[in-house]
Amino acid sequence: MANWFQRATRRTVSAAVRPRHDHSPAVVNRVQLGELSPTLDAYLGQAAYLQLSLFQTLGAAMATAPTIDAKEVLSRVAAMSLAKHHALVAEIERREPSAVRLMEPYTERIDAFHRITQGNDWYELLTTGYVVSGILNDFFIRLAAGLPPEAAARVTAVLSDDAGLELIVAELRAAIDAHPALASRLALWGRRLVGDTLLIARSALAVPELSGPDEARLEPIFTELIAAHTRRMDVLGLTA
Amino acid sequence: MANWFQRATRRTVSAAVRPRHDHSPAVVNRVQLGELSPTLDAYLGQAAYLQLSLFQTLGAAMATAPTIDAKEVLSRVAAMSLAKHHALVAEIERREPSAVRLMEPYTERIDAFHRITQGNDWYELLTTGYVVSGILNDFFIRLAAGLPPEAAARVTAVLSDDAGLELIVAELRAAIDAHPALASRLALWGRRLVGDTLLIARSALAVPELSGPDEARLEPIFTELIAAHTRRMDVLGLTA
Repeated sequence: MANWFQRATRRTVSAAVRPRHDHSPAVVNRVQLGELSPTLDAYLGQAAYLQLSLFQTLGAAMATAPTIDAKEVLSRVAAMSLAKHHALVAEIERREPSAVRLMEPYTERIDAFHRITQGNDWYELLTTGYVVSGILNDFFIRLAAGLPPEAAARVTAVLSDDAGLELIVAELRAAIDAHPALASRLALWGRRLVGDTLLIARSALAVPELSGPDEARLEPIFTELIAAHTRRMDVLGLTA
Repeated sequence: MANWFQRATRRTVSAAVRPRHDHSPAVVNRVQLGELSPTLDAYLGQAAYLQLSLFQTLGAAMATAPTIDAKEVLSRVAAMSLAKHHALVAEIERREPSAVRLMEPYTERIDAFHRITQGNDWYELLTTGYVVSGILNDFFIRLAAGLPPEAAARVTAVLSDDAGLELIVAELRAAIDAHPALASRLALWGRRLVGDTLLIARSALAVPELSGPDEARLEPIFTELIAAHTRRMDVLGLTA
């Protein structure tokens, strides 16, 4: 089983990280994400509500944490996630009295994403917190390049704090060390999550529908997101 | 129905607030609660874990909030509750490396209390957040009189911030105005909660078992807690 995961992962990653054209992938992506950024309103509405959804995932994980230590650690991560949500709401409220008005168009889609990423137990829920916040923070930081510079700088500062992820890593590593059979189950769950998370990220772009060649231009962005996700799963000793 | 509540409440309150002996109730209570305070460790372990439990109630209420506005308001209240928990943990960690060790003896009892106070829907859950935090903050602030003075001052400052309660009041009043039939249901639910909440408060005292006459000396404390609770329910237009 482990070998199959290993092999499949290597194949995916090696195909995915090969740069197209002659640009370095980083340059290609930065330029393209700037072009594809939604309006500041749409960006903040989605980023703020996604952060609230992530907080709810972490809150749910607290309720079923196997130890009081784990619950206490999660309470820290949940507080950080809630602080990010409130910082994004504060960013909205610099220009607009109702943060809710800006979040509302995205709540149905994000609530649906939330429901299908809750998993079957504490371990899967915690993996969701790790995988989803890793990919989405990464994505929204890159996407911020297309926002007005001052807002971009503030938003990037908010989203770049990944102290919460480090705390989750410690919990998940301890869980996997204690129950090695978790590794393949969580690796599978992680793959399920990547698909759904990339879809919700894709839906945040300013271009809902693209023709084939233009859609292909998005590929390097997702390739980079997947490569960063793969590195985060490596940290857990899990194949992506 | 409303009359029955009204009559029953008046009777309870008038019997309950009558002072025994010649002391004013405030003086009687303050002296007695000082005598009955648990050790600082036991106080902080229980107060911190109860605050975490309250946070989880508010987090659960967020998940079923009927509007995005309500969810956003609850996210503020939840953040305040979590901040109180972390401030109490920080108070523990001034003297003791593991806050979890101090909370652990109380988690089973408090988790059981948490389970039976979750109610049937969002309105009951929100009422739980209001009633339980109102009574318990009140109780622990009074109980702090028996702690070492510096710790008492810090803990009292943490627990005295009731900005969260004010936000819940606005949500609950709006809900009751919109659905007047809620008033009698939530009044009943509030009565159920008072009993359980006073029991968990009683269990925090340094005297698990008292003889009849000594147990009677606790009455004025609970009388005061109930009177303060009654005032909080009045604010909602509900009979206690």
